[in-house]
Amino acid sequence: MKSTLSNRLPIIVLGIPSVIYLLQVGGLLFSGFITIVVCLCVVEFYNLKSEEGLEPSYILGIPLTLIICYFYNQFPYVDGVFIVSALLLLIITYLFYEMFSGHQKPFYNISITLSGLLYPAFLLGAMIALRNWDEMNGGNFTISMVVTVWICDSAAYIFGRLWGKQKLIERISPNKTVVGFIGGIIGAFLSFYIMDQLGFIYQSLTIFDILILSFIVGVIGQLGDFVQSMFKRDAGVKDSGKLLLGHGGVLDRFDSLIFTSPVVLIFVLCL
Amino acid sequence: MKSTLSNRLPIIVLGIPSVIYLLQVGGLLFSGFITIVVCLCVVEFYNLKSEEGLEPSYILGIPLTLIICYFYNQFPYVDGVFIVSALLLLIITYLFYEMFSGHQKPFYNISITLSGLLYPAFLLGAMIALRNWDEMNGGNFTISMVVTVWICDSAAYIFGRLWGKQKLIERISPNKTVVGFIGGIIGAFLSFYIMDQLGFIYQSLTIFDILILSFIVGVIGQLGDFVQSMFKRDAGVKDSGKLLLGHGGVLDRFDSLIFTSPVVLIFVLCL
Repeated sequence: MKSTLSNRLPIIVLGIPSVIYLLQVGGLLFSGFITIVVCLCVVEFYNLKSEEGLEPSYILGIPLTLIICYFYNQFPYVDGVFIVSALLLLIITYLFYEMFSGHQKPFYNISITLSGLLYPAFLLGAMIALRNWDEMNGGNFTISMVVTVWICDSAAYIFGRLWGKQKLIERISPNKTVVGFIGGIIGAFLSFYIMDQLGFIYQSLTIFDILILSFIVGVIGQLGDFVQSMFKRDAGVKDSGKLLLGHGGVLDRFDSLIFTSPVVLIFVLCL
Repeated sequence: MKSTLSNRLPIIVLGIPSVIYLLQVGGLLFSGFITIVVCLCVVEFYNLKSEEGLEPSYILGIPLTLIICYFYNQFPYVDGVFIVSALLLLIITYLFYEMFSGHQKPFYNISITLSGLLYPAFLLGAMIALRNWDEMNGGNFTISMVVTVWICDSAAYIFGRLWGKQKLIERISPNKTVVGFIGGIIGAFLSFYIMDQLGFIYQSLTIFDILILSFIVGVIGQLGDFVQSMFKRDAGVKDSGKLLLGHGGVLDRFDSLIFTSPVVLIFVLCL
């Protein structure tokens, strides 16, 4: 589907307020929402290779993904015995299933099924732990991160359209320019800086913390877009899915957050 | 190299007493030994696909494997924050590295690198946690498991050679027969039963526990051999490596234990 403002509008008008609302509410509602998003990302990741004739196992990939989300919902107080046991048993069951199935190319089927648990599930699932940590701020820290990701993307787009000439990594993403990339970093910094000055984020952040957060969203988040573009280019598709109308798939929309969330989680755990 | 008794002998004469000794000593010496074995298994797993022109990342796969072994050495008291942070950062670093490298087929490179962390690393690493749990018995429980795996393999081989006709899963392993498989289960049961009667394993095992353990080694362990055969058949090789002379690679030797150890770990955690 062509990406026009008219078919992008429903997602913008409904999507942004809904996500902000869920971020504010937090708790099981937000964890459940992210769990669904993570599962959809895993399905799209598997879909990218299913079209080439491989057979990643949705039926075992999804329960394994649920366990990872459950792990993050408990984090950092983890029932290691239950989680490790469940992961081990499901992985072994899956390997036996693949052996008996007689599928072609079991090596690739298994590799794609299992790697989907680490990228994207293990990375994006970190958002659950981040929002739970953020309970004491009523979710403001997580909201500021998500808003900054949006602002970074928009600033990169605007800077790139206005002044962008030299491509950053043309082999992977021919639309992204050096100027756009720098614009994204500036946008991310301004977003965090202003929200911090308004007292929105978290009480005791220093300017150094703001710079680190800007780096995480501006540099790591934008490079995450490239990783996602690389996967799509490798699979020969333009969008990872069609679920979100003109916005492509869920993986496309959450590509920055897949990389931003885990690193921000590590950052807050070090605070 | 052809598998003859003469080139198998050094491994048997040196290997078996060495492994028994390490199992008795336990502690960091045993954990270190298994860590090396797990790393070698991951390298062989990657090698299976490197020969086809793919480029799994040894340089990031090995540190990630070390973290998994470290995790098991702490288990079930886990420093989740450090382990999760290190895993997340290394996975993200690896994804960026793969993006900048310009390798062909990044999707497959990434899938194989990451899935190697779950099979074999996450499965076989469980041996470390199992031996640590077993400290109160001086390692006898773990020794009895390893010895039973050897006896199961030998019984399966002898039964199969003497009376085996019908193949179990000819598509994957043309040498393994139904009779051999059943012989392996009988051998596993007798091994556990006799060691239990001699008071060697663990004080409070019931006959029902012995049956479960026999099932784990006899059925799950032997099916694990088939999974390993499936991977080799898929990659078009006979042995996973040449390190152990006539015994093939490390993956070949540890194939039963890759599946037996994690399930026995779960079993003892439920005791």
